[in-house]
Amino acid sequence: MSNTSNPAQPAAPGLADRLLAGDPRAIARAISLIEDEAPTSTDLLRRIFPHTGRAYLIGVTGPPGAGKSTLVDRMTQELRARNRTVGIVAVDPTSPFTGGAILGDRVRMQAHAGDSGVFIRSMATRGHLGGLARATYEVALVLDASGKDVVLIETVGVGQDEVDIVRTADVSVVTLVPGAGDEVQALKAGIMEIADLFVVNKADREGADRTVASIESLLALEAYAPEAWRPPILKTQATSGTGVPELLDAIDRFRSRPSDDGLVRRRARSEFRLRELVADRFLDHVAREVLGDGEFEALLERIAGRSVDPYSAANDIVERALGRRKQA
Amino acid sequence: MSNTSNPAQPAAPGLADRLLAGDPRAIARAISLIEDEAPTSTDLLRRIFPHTGRAYLIGVTGPPGAGKSTLVDRMTQELRARNRTVGIVAVDPTSPFTGGAILGDRVRMQAHAGDSGVFIRSMATRGHLGGLARATYEVALVLDASGKDVVLIETVGVGQDEVDIVRTADVSVVTLVPGAGDEVQALKAGIMEIADLFVVNKADREGADRTVASIESLLALEAYAPEAWRPPILKTQATSGTGVPELLDAIDRFRSRPSDDGLVRRRARSEFRLRELVADRFLDHVAREVLGDGEFEALLERIAGRSVDPYSAANDIVERALGRRKQA
Repeated sequence: MSNTSNPAQPAAPGLADRLLAGDPRAIARAISLIEDEAPTSTDLLRRIFPHTGRAYLIGVTGPPGAGKSTLVDRMTQELRARNRTVGIVAVDPTSPFTGGAILGDRVRMQAHAGDSGVFIRSMATRGHLGGLARATYEVALVLDASGKDVVLIETVGVGQDEVDIVRTADVSVVTLVPGAGDEVQALKAGIMEIADLFVVNKADREGADRTVASIESLLALEAYAPEAWRPPILKTQATSGTGVPELLDAIDRFRSRPSDDGLVRRRARSEFRLRELVADRFLDHVAREVLGDGEFEALLERIAGRSVDPYSAANDIVERALGRRKQA
Repeated sequence: MSNTSNPAQPAAPGLADRLLAGDPRAIARAISLIEDEAPTSTDLLRRIFPHTGRAYLIGVTGPPGAGKSTLVDRMTQELRARNRTVGIVAVDPTSPFTGGAILGDRVRMQAHAGDSGVFIRSMATRGHLGGLARATYEVALVLDASGKDVVLIETVGVGQDEVDIVRTADVSVVTLVPGAGDEVQALKAGIMEIADLFVVNKADREGADRTVASIESLLALEAYAPEAWRPPILKTQATSGTGVPELLDAIDRFRSRPSDDGLVRRRARSEFRLRELVADRFLDHVAREVLGDGEFEALLERIAGRSVDPYSAANDIVERALGRRKQA
């Protein structure tokens, strides 16, 4: 159960201050610490946390091939034209071995090269459950603290992992393309519940209106209270930028909607993260101070041999950690 | 942070015994307890755990429309013909409100009506992260304890949630259909790493060989050690049953492969579940005995107001639970 810590990666002195001043090198360094799960990243996050909560987090998700990267780039251009600074986290669930994320970064960086109001970073899959969603949230905190007005969180796919990532955002934009019959079906699989806005991208293609209609018919199945936000469906052509200003206007309307749903959402996110942090700390403590060397492995052996069940084993570990039970 | 427990649902006396004897009503009741997260489900799982570890768990996943249900039905027929008893868990990530799971059950039950060697149960999405994967694993334990030789775990989609579900299996079958260009792309998103066997279903359709070729080319990118298992690609037509015996033969070969990879996999699964159980127990303890009424909510309020950061808050909670720190 030991948590293989990375070799100590001391945060450079003054890293937090430079980050808070918006220094891109400090931002990049901070994100690397988070990606490497360096112990110093927690100290850093603790220091910058009081300076967060200002940025608006926009999640953009959808199936592969929906044109999300281009859309995010166009949104960035439009946001810059509106004098807002932008941080982009592109979460790429491809295998860490492909190096796709890094290559993509280089290509995309060029579009905003020389603009200090934009910071782009791609992240690849982490090995453990929930790890990517957590890292994404922490990177968003970093960009927030660095003074970016808007943080765009772009993620591929419509699975649970993406749903969790998008849930860290203040608003979720689900992007589809014409003819995406299967994808609209897949929407039922949870993403329907997280979409605040729908975008039908590549709207010049045949079938765009049919795709809009099938989203409409799914929305018609939901019961919306009269004052509730009903997800609008926007049509865009990201390659030319058509429809992107309207999309940002719709996001602004969502942001300024009268309900306090936004607060509720931030609260739910905060609660989830706190529970997760508490669980992580406790598991660390158990690994370091409760279980002896090799004891966890021996326990797994006994579970495999069915001489102990995992429910009793978990109970025993917690009781021992709480000092209620002597070591067996 | 309070865990809204369900109203006490006492396990009927003798439930474990009846379950171990293979009584379908007892199996159904046990699964309901797990789905409802009834406190008694833990006692039940503890009692039946020593009788588990015998069933072979086969995960079947793939995008919507790949014909997984039909394939699983055909596999069940073939397994019955080979004198093996079968439990099926069909994990349906559609919203719990659609009722799709229950309807599907009724339709599918008919195919195996009157065969006491088959038990089918669908499960819908649980609200919380990882909840579905855990429940699926526990239902598999129940079917295992009830004496089923094989447990088929069927799940829709290729996202992280499905990956986690399929990881609970001993072998993972990824099902695709001809022309699934996007889906093969999506494979890169993690599922490539979990596939032990590929099935190209509806193999009579045009483009089947192209789909096989694109999987081949993805596999060619992986570096397999000479003695390592290289995922075979099977062609099936589930509606007629063509290719299904060959699929089961391939699964048997996988099961009897010389490496001890199977043990490693069961070990990893066991470790993950134990950590999860320990975390859950501890969070329960914190909610019930460490934090006062409304204290968690007050803490979230302070985090929202940025007067405390979540990292320090999590630390404080753990320290207090361990009795190292007085209440602030």
